[in-house]
Amino acid sequence: MFESAEVGHAIPKREYQRHEPKLRQALLEAQYQQLSEAKRPVIVLVNGVDGAGKGETVNLFNEWMDPRHIHTHAFGELTDEERDRPEMWRFWRVLPPRGRIGILFGSWYTDPILARVMGRQKRAKFQRRLELIRRFERMLIAEGAVLLKLWFHLSRKAQAKRLKELSRSKKTAWRISPGDWERFKHYDEFVQICELALRETSNAEAPWHVIEGVDARYRALTAGRLLLAAMKSPTAQQPPAPHAVREGADRQNVLRKLDYSAVLTRSRYDERLLAAQARLSELMRGRAMRRRSLVIVFEGMDAAGKGSTIRRVTRAMDARFYRVIPVAAPTDEERAQPYLWRFWRHIPGHGRCVIFDRSWYGRVLVERVEGFCSEGDWARAYSEINDFEAQLHDAGAIVLKFWLSITPAEQLKRFKERQSTPYKRFKITDEDWRNRKKWPAYERAVCDMVDATSTDRAPWNLIAANDKLHARVQVLEHIAKRVEAEGG
Amino acid sequence: MFESAEVGHAIPKREYQRHEPKLRQALLEAQYQQLSEAKRPVIVLVNGVDGAGKGETVNLFNEWMDPRHIHTHAFGELTDEERDRPEMWRFWRVLPPRGRIGILFGSWYTDPILARVMGRQKRAKFQRRLELIRRFERMLIAEGAVLLKLWFHLSRKAQAKRLKELSRSKKTAWRISPGDWERFKHYDEFVQICELALRETSNAEAPWHVIEGVDARYRALTAGRLLLAAMKSPTAQQPPAPHAVREGADRQNVLRKLDYSAVLTRSRYDERLLAAQARLSELMRGRAMRRRSLVIVFEGMDAAGKGSTIRRVTRAMDARFYRVIPVAAPTDEERAQPYLWRFWRHIPGHGRCVIFDRSWYGRVLVERVEGFCSEGDWARAYSEINDFEAQLHDAGAIVLKFWLSITPAEQLKRFKERQSTPYKRFKITDEDWRNRKKWPAYERAVCDMVDATSTDRAPWNLIAANDKLHARVQVLEHIAKRVEAEGG
Repeated sequence: MFESAEVGHAIPKREYQRHEPKLRQALLEAQYQQLSEAKRPVIVLVNGVDGAGKGETVNLFNEWMDPRHIHTHAFGELTDEERDRPEMWRFWRVLPPRGRIGILFGSWYTDPILARVMGRQKRAKFQRRLELIRRFERMLIAEGAVLLKLWFHLSRKAQAKRLKELSRSKKTAWRISPGDWERFKHYDEFVQICELALRETSNAEAPWHVIEGVDARYRALTAGRLLLAAMKSPTAQQPPAPHAVREGADRQNVLRKLDYSAVLTRSRYDERLLAAQARLSELMRGRAMRRRSLVIVFEGMDAAGKGSTIRRVTRAMDARFYRVIPVAAPTDEERAQPYLWRFWRHIPGHGRCVIFDRSWYGRVLVERVEGFCSEGDWARAYSEINDFEAQLHDAGAIVLKFWLSITPAEQLKRFKERQSTPYKRFKITDEDWRNRKKWPAYERAVCDMVDATSTDRAPWNLIAANDKLHARVQVLEHIAKRVEAEGG
Repeated sequence: MFESAEVGHAIPKREYQRHEPKLRQALLEAQYQQLSEAKRPVIVLVNGVDGAGKGETVNLFNEWMDPRHIHTHAFGELTDEERDRPEMWRFWRVLPPRGRIGILFGSWYTDPILARVMGRQKRAKFQRRLELIRRFERMLIAEGAVLLKLWFHLSRKAQAKRLKELSRSKKTAWRISPGDWERFKHYDEFVQICELALRETSNAEAPWHVIEGVDARYRALTAGRLLLAAMKSPTAQQPPAPHAVREGADRQNVLRKLDYSAVLTRSRYDERLLAAQARLSELMRGRAMRRRSLVIVFEGMDAAGKGSTIRRVTRAMDARFYRVIPVAAPTDEERAQPYLWRFWRHIPGHGRCVIFDRSWYGRVLVERVEGFCSEGDWARAYSEINDFEAQLHDAGAIVLKFWLSITPAEQLKRFKERQSTPYKRFKITDEDWRNRKKWPAYERAVCDMVDATSTDRAPWNLIAANDKLHARVQVLEHIAKRVEAEGG
C-alpha cells in the first residue's frame, strides 16, 4: 500500500512556482463556493508517519485558503469531559457545519492504530473499531459530507533522516519529542498496522490517499490537488435504501399483540409505584452508578402519556443528576450537522441520566411517515442508530427505550378529554388530528423500528399504555430492574 | 440578615395541603407562559447552609413544574476544560436560553464564599469578586433575565440537629459527607462571610431571599411562592443609559490624528514582516505560552484590510493552536442568550489563540449606529465589555485589540478596485455603500469605544491602515511585542 510513496517523488522548484498560484486560487474559489452553498461540510483527515509534513500541510491549507472558514483541530490527551463519554464524542463535538472546512489533525484512526501498535489492544478489538469507523464514515458521506483522508508516509530510512534533521536545527528541535523517537523504534509494526487499517477502511466512497512526505513541494501540490478535487466532486449519490420493509401476510403485529386490558387499581398503583421509585432512587445513588450513565428514550403516539410517565421517573431521581431533553424542531446549528449530532451533544457523563422525550427515532417515525427525509435517509438510520446505541453502551451507558402503546380508540378518548379541559387545551393541536389519520403508516413504521433496532444491548420495551397507571408502574419497575442488573 | 430565618417558621400540614395544589398549578401555568413567550430566561440560584433543604427544594420545583423545560445544574469540581478558562465560563456555558428555567445548585457565590471561609482568599480579593458578581447579575437582568436568588438558612443548633438526623437514617446518610461536618466546624465564620456576601449583593434588582430551612412545608411554600412571583414579575425596566457621550468642541479626534502618510516599501515590508512573524512564531512555542492564551480582536471600517492582516498573523502560528472566528449574524441559539454568550463560547484554553474578525464591539459600533439595539443596551455594553476582557486577562489571556483605520478617500478607492476585479467582486455589496454614508456616525462610535474600553489590560491599538503593508507590519510587530512582554 505504501510502495508508491517510497519512490522518491519530487517536484522541481520552477514547476512548483508555476503551479502553486493557480492551485491556490482554485482552492480559494472552491472554498467560497462551498461556503456560499452551505450544503456540505468538508472534513479533511490528516494522518501518517511523524515527520512526514502533516503540520506543514495543514498550515499551508490555512495559508492558501481563507483561514476564517477553516476549523483545525488537533487531538491530544482526552479531557476529563471526553473520557466519560463514547470515544467518538470528541469528534462529533468538532464536526464542521455545512459550508465549512474542518481539518482533523489526528483523527478517529489515531487511537486504534497506536493502541494496536503498542500492544494495548487485541486484533479482534482493532477490527471491530475499524468496522465502527467504516460505518461512521459511511454515515458522514450519506449526510452529504466531503470526506478527504490523507496519509503522509515516509520510508523507515526517510523517517530516521527527517527526525535527525529536525532535531539538529534549533528552530525545529521543539517539534521532536522523546515520544517520536520512541515510536520510531516501532516503525515496522506501526507501518504494518497502518497498512492494515488503511486497506480495511479504503473504499470507493472514502478512499485513503497516501502521499510521500519527503519532498515538501511534491507533498504540497499533491495534497492541495486532492483537496481541490474533493471539494469540486459532485455530491455523493444517496446509497440505495438498504432495508426492505415488508408487512406480514396477516394483520397481526407486535403492537396489536399487546394486552391492552391490563389495569391497575389506584391503591395497587400507589404501592407499586412508590416501591419502584424508592428502589430506583437507591440504585441511582449506589456506588456502581458512578461509572455508569443512564440514557432513557420515550416514544409513543400523541397522548400516549410520555410526559406524565417521565415525571414519575424523574421523581425517583435527584434533579442534580438528570436532565430531560424534549425533542422539538432542530435549531439552525443542529440543521447544519449530521442528523445524530443534536443527540450526541446531550450524552451524559458518568453518574448522570438523560431522558429523551422523543428522540433520534423521529427519523424512522415522523420523518419517514411525513416524508421529511428521503427513503435512503430513514432506511440507513436503523443501522446508524444501532451503532450510536452500541457506542453508548460500550461507554458505560445503560440504554432504555420505551414505546408507550395506546389503541386508536384510547387516543380519541384522550384527545376529546384534552379539548374539554381548559388547562390541557394547549396540549392538543390540529397537527395531532392530522397525525391521527396516518395511524396505519405510523404503526407500520413502529413495527419496522422495533424489528430493526431492538438489540441485545438496547432492547425496545413495548408498554401497553391504555391504562396510565399500569404503564407508569411497568416503566418504573423496568428501569429499576435494568439498573439493578447492569449497574447495581 | 439571618434573624428572620431563625424564628422557627412552620406551616401546619392542613394548611400546606390547602395551598400546595394551587401553588403548583400556578407555577405550571407561569412556566408555560414563559415558555410560549420565550422572552426571558429564568435563573434560580440555590445556595445556603448544608442540610437546609436545598436539594429537596430543587427536586420539588422539578416535580411541581414540567421538568422537560427545566435545566438543573450542580457545580462540583472544575473539569480540566473549565480550569483553563475564566471562572465565569462554567456558568456562561449552562445559562438557560430564553423561555427556559435554569436552576443553579451552587453558583457563582459558592467558590468566593468557601475560599474566604477557608482562608484561601484575602478580604480585598473577596470584595473584588463580589463586585464582579454584582456587575454580572446587573448584565443578566439588563438582558432580560428573571434572576431569583434563594438562600436556605439554618441556625447553628438547627444545622447540628439536621446533620445528626440525616446521618442516623440509612436512607439519608449518603447525603452527609465528612466535608459537611468539617464545614460545620466553621459555622460561625461561614455565616459571617455569607452575611457579608448577601448584604453586598442584595439590591433592588436582584435581592437575596433568605428562607429558614427547618420546616419542610414552610420552606417549600415560601420558595415556590418566591419563584412564582419572580416569573410573574414584569420585565425589568431598562436602566437609563449610563454613559453620556459627547464630542469635543473641535473636529479633532483619535482617528483623524493618526498619521496616514506612513508607507513601507515592498522590500522593507518583506523584511520586517518576516522578522516579526519569525519572532512571534518562536514566542508562541515558548514555555510561557503554555499557561497563557491569546485573544486578538480586529475591527475596522469595511475594506480596512482585516482579512488580509489576519492571514499574515495566522501564518506565524501553527494551525493546530489558533482559530479564527468571523463574526456574522448570530445563530438562533445565540440569539436566545445574553449578548456576550456567543463570544464566551469561543474563549480559548491555555496555549491557544483565538482571533476575532469583528467582535463583541459590534454592539457599540454597527448595532449602535444602525439602531439594532436600544441606547440602554449599547451604553451598558462598554462596562460589560471591560469586565469581560478583565476576566480574560485574569485567566491568563493576552487581549489584543486592533482598529485598522482608513480614511474615507482610501475606502472609496478600495471599493472601486473591488468592483473592477472579478474575483473580489463578491466582497462588495450594497450594504457596504450604505454603511459608507454613515461614516461620521461610525467615526463617532469608534472614538467613544476607544475612550470607554481602552484599558490598561486591554488597550486599543489604532493602526493607520491606508498603506496595507505598513499596517500589517505594525500589527505583527505589536503582537510580538505584547506576547514577549507578557507571555515570553
